[in-house]
Amino acid sequence: MSGVVVTGIRRADRADIDALASFGSATVHEAMGRTGYAGPAIRALQRDAAIAGSAITVSAAAGDNLMVHVAIEQAEEGDVIVVVPAADSAYGVIGELMATQMQTRGVRGYVTSGGVRDTAELRAMGFPVWATHVSALGTVKDTAGSVNIPVVLGAVGVRPGDVIVADDDGVAVVPLAQVAATRAAAATRAERERRNRERYRAGEISMDINELRPVLEGLGVRHLTQAEYDDDH
Amino acid sequence: MSGVVVTGIRRADRADIDALASFGSATVHEAMGRTGYAGPAIRALQRDAAIAGSAITVSAAAGDNLMVHVAIEQAEEGDVIVVVPAADSAYGVIGELMATQMQTRGVRGYVTSGGVRDTAELRAMGFPVWATHVSALGTVKDTAGSVNIPVVLGAVGVRPGDVIVADDDGVAVVPLAQVAATRAAAATRAERERRNRERYRAGEISMDINELRPVLEGLGVRHLTQAEYDDDH
Amino acid sequence: MSGVVVTGIRRADRADIDALASFGSATVHEAMGRTGYAGPAIRALQRDAAIAGSAITVSAAAGDNLMVHVAIEQAEEGDVIVVVPAADSAYGVIGELMATQMQTRGVRGYVTSGGVRDTAELRAMGFPVWATHVSALGTVKDTAGSVNIPVVLGAVGVRPGDVIVADDDGVAVVPLAQVAATRAAAATRAERERRNRERYRAGEISMDINELRPVLEGLGVRHLTQAEYDDDH
Amino acid sequence: MSGVVVTGIRRADRADIDALASFGSATVHEAMGRTGYAGPAIRALQRDAAIAGSAITVSAAAGDNLMVHVAIEQAEEGDVIVVVPAADSAYGVIGELMATQMQTRGVRGYVTSGGVRDTAELRAMGFPVWATHVSALGTVKDTAGSVNIPVVLGAVGVRPGDVIVADDDGVAVVPLAQVAATRAAAATRAERERRNRERYRAGEISMDINELRPVLEGLGVRHLTQAEYDDDH
Amino acid sequence: MSGVVVTGIRRADRADIDALASFGSATVHEAMGRTGYAGPAIRALQRDAAIAGSAITVSAAAGDNLMVHVAIEQAEEGDVIVVVPAADSAYGVIGELMATQMQTRGVRGYVTSGGVRDTAELRAMGFPVWATHVSALGTVKDTAGSVNIPVVLGAVGVRPGDVIVADDDGVAVVPLAQVAATRAAAATRAERERRNRERYRAGEISMDINELRPVLEGLGVRHLTQAEYDDDH
Amino acid sequence: MSGVVVTGIRRADRADIDALASFGSATVHEAMGRTGYAGPAIRALQRDAAIAGSAITVSAAAGDNLMVHVAIEQAEEGDVIVVVPAADSAYGVIGELMATQMQTRGVRGYVTSGGVRDTAELRAMGFPVWATHVSALGTVKDTAGSVNIPVVLGAVGVRPGDVIVADDDGVAVVPLAQVAATRAAAATRAERERRNRERYRAGEISMDINELRPVLEGLGVRHLTQAEYDDDH
Repeated sequence: MSGVVVTGIRRADRADIDALASFGSATVHEAMGRTGYAGPAIRALQRDAAIAGSAITVSAAAGDNLMVHVAIEQAEEGDVIVVVPAADSAYGVIGELMATQMQTRGVRGYVTSGGVRDTAELRAMGFPVWATHVSALGTVKDTAGSVNIPVVLGAVGVRPGDVIVADDDGVAVVPLAQVAATRAAAATRAERERRNRERYRAGEISMDINELRPVLEGLGVRHLTQAEYDDDH
Repeated sequence: MSGVVVTGIRRADRADIDALASFGSATVHEAMGRTGYAGPAIRALQRDAAIAGSAITVSAAAGDNLMVHVAIEQAEEGDVIVVVPAADSAYGVIGELMATQMQTRGVRGYVTSGGVRDTAELRAMGFPVWATHVSALGTVKDTAGSVNIPVVLGAVGVRPGDVIVADDDGVAVVPLAQVAATRAAAATRAERERRNRERYRAGEISMDINELRPVLEGLGVRHLTQAEYDDDH
Repeated sequence: MSGVVVTGIRRADRADIDALASFGSATVHEAMGRTGYAGPAIRALQRDAAIAGSAITVSAAAGDNLMVHVAIEQAEEGDVIVVVPAADSAYGVIGELMATQMQTRGVRGYVTSGGVRDTAELRAMGFPVWATHVSALGTVKDTAGSVNIPVVLGAVGVRPGDVIVADDDGVAVVPLAQVAATRAAAATRAERERRNRERYRAGEISMDINELRPVLEGLGVRHLTQAEYDDDH
Repeated sequence: MSGVVVTGIRRADRADIDALASFGSATVHEAMGRTGYAGPAIRALQRDAAIAGSAITVSAAAGDNLMVHVAIEQAEEGDVIVVVPAADSAYGVIGELMATQMQTRGVRGYVTSGGVRDTAELRAMGFPVWATHVSALGTVKDTAGSVNIPVVLGAVGVRPGDVIVADDDGVAVVPLAQVAATRAAAATRAERERRNRERYRAGEISMDINELRPVLEGLGVRHLTQAEYDDDH
Repeated sequence: MSGVVVTGIRRADRADIDALASFGSATVHEAMGRTGYAGPAIRALQRDAAIAGSAITVSAAAGDNLMVHVAIEQAEEGDVIVVVPAADSAYGVIGELMATQMQTRGVRGYVTSGGVRDTAELRAMGFPVWATHVSALGTVKDTAGSVNIPVVLGAVGVRPGDVIVADDDGVAVVPLAQVAATRAAAATRAERERRNRERYRAGEISMDINELRPVLEGLGVRHLTQAEYDDDH
Repeated sequence: MSGVVVTGIRRADRADIDALASFGSATVHEAMGRTGYAGPAIRALQRDAAIAGSAITVSAAAGDNLMVHVAIEQAEEGDVIVVVPAADSAYGVIGELMATQMQTRGVRGYVTSGGVRDTAELRAMGFPVWATHVSALGTVKDTAGSVNIPVVLGAVGVRPGDVIVADDDGVAVVPLAQVAATRAAAATRAERERRNRERYRAGEISMDINELRPVLEGLGVRHLTQAEYDDDH
């Protein structure tokens, strides 16, 4: 049951990673065929941070941060550390001191289905965090775990080196093999959205642009006046 | 099971609506005899927005935003779109593009017991949203639903044209027939609160102003010194 | 079953209280041997407030704020009012008017495992609140309760006069008898953290500073290259 | 803000009510066009009870059972008492003694979005209960409320006299005006289900019976062998 | 931060303990002035077990059962082991093998705000358990904790030797110093309930027995016919 | 975004599958190095069912059961159908009629992170189900999804053909490639547990059998008498 630390993981192309950050988690999730979103329980603890980076994954016992220390040593500039406790639990697994190490090494953010603490300090130092819990509850360094093995983060699997895209809507995960294709699909989608945004600002509506009237008709949705409806109910 | 879109709904007087916005959800809820509050699960996604408007209601399948497109076409300046999914579910049913259409048409805000996405963009564009979930999870346009039928939003029923009052404390719903009376009662209450606020700032306390000492006495609440209490325990 | 109001409670030394505020909830919790944290469900409703004060405790029926009025009369400058409803429940037990009284008397903050309302106004007036719920739902003044008896706030017991330390990470409770010792232990810890922070900023890592390599080795954690790991899986 | 007790409410035909009980909550919900289900949070506290009855509604403060005593006096043989506390809260609002009164009067069951206690005794006496919480927490009789006014029970509105249909899947509510039509639609649906059940037992599948192959095709769902899928991923 | 194991704890009189078991958690909670109930999150995992015993308390890291092994050695016939993890977490901290040891030593039950596993086996062997979570998730034996120190179990403090009363409604805790008085008060209450039960079975109602009509009148609750109510709404 | 149905999936050896069922989810989870447990939110809806089978996986929109119909056609004797909705949601995705088809084809059980209905009928017909929600809420057949692609079920990934082991403690997932090794490890563990069970029944305790005294000593846990402890606190 002892853990492993996997070294020498593969990472995606930096330009692709940065492009994914610019699209944001929702567009990236759509670009992957509506997959890869980690779910609403992993929330941004600050506003308006939008990052992407290569996942350094951590599988740890709840309330034990030993393997996060190990993960920091494995992390390089541009990485995102992803910590999954064995059970949902509101410990403050990292705080300002851990984040200082990460920030000094160029880690772009920290993502966890567990908890963090020192949230005021984390915001003040500009180190972005996505977490399920905020908790001052302290941890120990007693139990083995693993770094850079596959983990399940909320609703999605993460392998080391997968690209983490995180912003105010939460976290999307792009498998390493799909990074380039996802970048391209997201760019196409973003461009279409840009054009639609302009049309909407000019007063057009999606009922027309998306040609939804035949869809409604096909589903049998009827328009009634208030008086007609009241007669029926 | 196919849906309906009810047109030509009745709306409240604009001056009454604007007055209700100025009182806020808590005062309006009190003015209705402590009714009409939709509950704590429908939360403001921004700070310090305080709006009121006429409800355009949407009953939709979870994860399907087809009927929200329809609702936008039905909405007028001064409306609030209210979306109730059939089951609690964290889809991002609308985002920036839908909100752009709403904002362009003068819709004052969006309220849902489901989820939304693009929350950073929504805040940046100044379009206020109250929702149960934040989620990037994308939706489809496959299933029929209804617009402007009665719905249940959290703990309260909403009929089309009812006045939605929303601020940092959540959402209150004023039935169309009670709008004028609620405005009057809220004004009375706000004036009384204003007077009390001044007295409290001057150092008076509610134990005196509200004449609570006889209430306590009637309930048999006793004052003990710490020493007397310790003797008993 | 009628309640009591205990008067003349003991309080800690003001300088100790202020020092505890400066350390924050996480450091204070650690300094007490990882005890005293009230848990993640009692959340800061504003950002960057960090206070400490003597607990005035309130045990009340859910949805009844009568005893909070009583508590205000018992409160002195430097106190924190701590309200525990008999059952978890999202009433807005206090709002701006109650907070105005508290602020006028020098109360430093309000902590509850229940709910509050008027959250925009509370932030605007700079009165800090930690609560489990935000809710506009109004309360009554019908049922007896107690002030300054022992209560359980989330995961921790609170006695009147215990020191409440609250910040963005939540609430820690220091028993009156442990205040001086906790201040000393927290100061020691904060100084050690200050030194480590500098070393981390200079590029050292906790794997080295905390001598974690032998811990890992003792637990049997192995380092593998990606290729070695893939061979095994 | 004082309450009212409405007397002389209308009730549905007893034969219709009993027929609805025999169909169960799921079939009744479907027969109303997938409306009327109170949601998953109101759970059966026993197994295999299936009832229907006329709603006696109660709107009460959390933790206060005064109005339930009043409701019992209003209840007749064949009724179901429906209790909605103002806020979600885990008080044991009724127990064995209240249930004894109800059972003696011929009340068929008790439904609440709050809590109950004495659950072992309730099961032993064969009085069925649907509730959100089980809790020993005791209540008071201090605060006014109302009996037989419209309430919101979970996801659905209930008016006095509406028919409550409750079984192991939860609670459905049939508006008084829709009782006869719902009975007829449910009977049709049950008969169709009976025929399908036999075909399924004989080995047919719904892909064929429901003619789902063209639906799949229309949606573009493709069949791939495992080898074809693996090539793509 | 290392733990302690306190030996030689005081226990209550066995006859008092057994009497408390016969009254059940709700009556005992009422007899203590509506205090001592641990809350609805600690649920019976079987039906119709009703026990009482002396608390052996355990404070442990989440996901670590080391101190439960220690507690078993400290337990005597008639005890109940009470385990509080540092954070809410769904590990299966004990299962059949631990329960076998407990049962062999005469331990009457196991109570935890954490989780257990082997629930089918636990029911089959007749060893009663109250827990917040059911989970197969395995634990380690790595981190220090304490046995027989004061803990907070849900909403209530527990000291070693306090009497745990547990049944289908959950868990009540009687402080050692209040055992005899609580037994007497519970007996009085149970006798009054017995008399009322007979009267209720005979058709009387609590509106009369409890003299609630003047209470209603004092609160201003009015009786209206359906027609009168409809005129007003 | 249209889905796929993968046919011709690989399955594990039937004897291995049946052996895994006999060990149960907790032992299997331990035998895989404490991995593979889907978590506590996927609960048994009946008591004492213990099954294992080959996973037929379904990825579907919330509230849409179209792809479950498809999965039934793909299922063979000995399979378990595993349904993951895109978002957590309490629809009753299957009920008695779907279960009848599954049972007729020899499907051993149904596992979902969503909901089911007709729970009384499911228990009566002896078809075991593990689900997160019980809900009568009806579904549609409008949206594409996939069968037999990798999914995330709670805390664990599932690939088609993986072995699902489910009992009263929940669901464990054994990857196809680890089935034989897991069977062997579970058998070893079960035999060790059998021996320990006998020793525990004979009065030995795990403190001795597991040699935990040196562990405690190494962690610095001290034994104190109650008097010694009280002196310190």
